[in-house]
Amino acid sequence: MHIDHIGIAVRDLESAIQTYEKILNTSCFKREVVESEKVDTAFLQTGESKVELLGGTSPDSVINSYIERRGEGIHHVAFEVTDIEKEMKRLKDEGFRLLNETPKKGADNKLVAFLHPKGQHGVLVELCQSMDTE
Amino acid sequence: MHIDHIGIAVRDLESAIQTYEKILNTSCFKREVVESEKVDTAFLQTGESKVELLGGTSPDSVINSYIERRGEGIHHVAFEVTDIEKEMKRLKDEGFRLLNETPKKGADNKLVAFLHPKGQHGVLVELCQSMDTE
Repeated sequence: MHIDHIGIAVRDLESAIQTYEKILNTSCFKREVVESEKVDTAFLQTGESKVELLGGTSPDSVINSYIERRGEGIHHVAFEVTDIEKEMKRLKDEGFRLLNETPKKGADNKLVAFLHPKGQHGVLVELCQSMDTE
Repeated sequence: MHIDHIGIAVRDLESAIQTYEKILNTSCFKREVVESEKVDTAFLQTGESKVELLGGTSPDSVINSYIERRGEGIHHVAFEVTDIEKEMKRLKDEGFRLLNETPKKGADNKLVAFLHPKGQHGVLVELCQSMDTE
């Protein structure tokens, strides 16, 4: 298991991309709109992990409502696993609450599942498994 | 550059350690009190990065005042660099505001510097450089 990415909720995606390109001294390598979640995403690589910048594409996007409540900032952390269904079962057996009972398709060609933030001291934890076949 | 750690502010450090040991399926490998910051820390490894759990040791700790304002959750993200003074100068020249002008001694035998969260879309960014000589 390792940190696949941290997701950062931002108001202005273009401005955030410029900022994080400077901090990480690298260029954004992927842009992707996830229609089902009404989010526009941008990815930057740093070591084995990524920074995922998240902007809402509509006022009722989960990102916009997050920013309304909490302001811009780190929205979630995602851990890459090799077998997401096995990890979901393991954590459910440990007493964690899953926000989705079966893996769903997320950005960056991943299967994803979320743990309820109440169980992790305020942190929204994502599990993800790459669907890339290399 | 890579993610050295994410720092998570928690009310109850012992309970948080148990939670993240389950999520990451690994044991906490280091405990350290940073007296100057009034924080008690616990580290768990995941891939090349760590999860740093942060509990305040006093009601006036920065961690307790953060939790008062924002609740528990991800407090900062730290990027490991090989030459912190060079990176601090590079980012200052790019227009970023540093919270400390010279590197200071942090937890986990690191030299650290923080960028003001206003400049990074609400994210408190730490730069760190290991002082371990291997």
